[in-house]
Amino acid sequence: MIGRVTKEAIMPGFEKHVFVCTNVRPAGNPRGCCSGKGGEAIRDALKNAVARLGLKGKVRINGAGCLDQCEHGPTIVVYPEGVWYGFVTLADVDEIVESHLINGRPVERLRLADGCINAPVCPHKGKSNA
Amino acid sequence: MIGRVTKEAIMPGFEKHVFVCTNVRPAGNPRGCCSGKGGEAIRDALKNAVARLGLKGKVRINGAGCLDQCEHGPTIVVYPEGVWYGFVTLADVDEIVESHLINGRPVERLRLADGCINAPVCPHKGKSNA
Repeated sequence: MIGRVTKEAIMPGFEKHVFVCTNVRPAGNPRGCCSGKGGEAIRDALKNAVARLGLKGKVRINGAGCLDQCEHGPTIVVYPEGVWYGFVTLADVDEIVESHLINGRPVERLRLADGCINAPVCPHKGKSNA
Repeated sequence: MIGRVTKEAIMPGFEKHVFVCTNVRPAGNPRGCCSGKGGEAIRDALKNAVARLGLKGKVRINGAGCLDQCEHGPTIVVYPEGVWYGFVTLADVDEIVESHLINGRPVERLRLADGCINAPVCPHKGKSNA
């Protein structure tokens, strides 16, 4: 087990910090990539929503390099709570913003199952990727 | 105040998820950018350390878009604890890995002051950027 930081160490920052995978893999890669599945458009739609709703400074949307959950892309992780979403589409953006980022209720239907995150094998991932 | 997610909502993921700003701004921008200050090299050095130490799956290093703390770059944020570092150099990488990522003790001398994060004005930021 890696050392944990105590609660007292928590510093002020964004109330919600959202990272959208926008990693690019070569065409034909068996894991696919979040860029090829629309990651950038989802990042941009989230950024636009945050600006439109005046959430700047409280909610931050960032594109990120490979979050290593490629088979479930486009993937998103929301910190500090560490909620993971997979198979996100543009049609899901408004619900993520309103339910989770504003009202603190994660969108359950989009959450990655515990057994899918960092698992060598899961229903979406073949043994060849272990 | 934006809604908070309860502790029960926390899902398994990385024990430490580190985002290094690698944003690029045009040369001469008054805020500067983390890419121009060495963000990519720091990201790569952190990735190499994680691989070398066998921390894959527990610690994840990612480059990220603009974390909006440009005047303090290169900036890094470590989740889930939300510890922010600024003015990081390559010489700081081993200490961040050993002290914080492995042993859970943030590197105090590198932490951004509370008054610097998301503040319109701070000792590093002029009023023109407010």
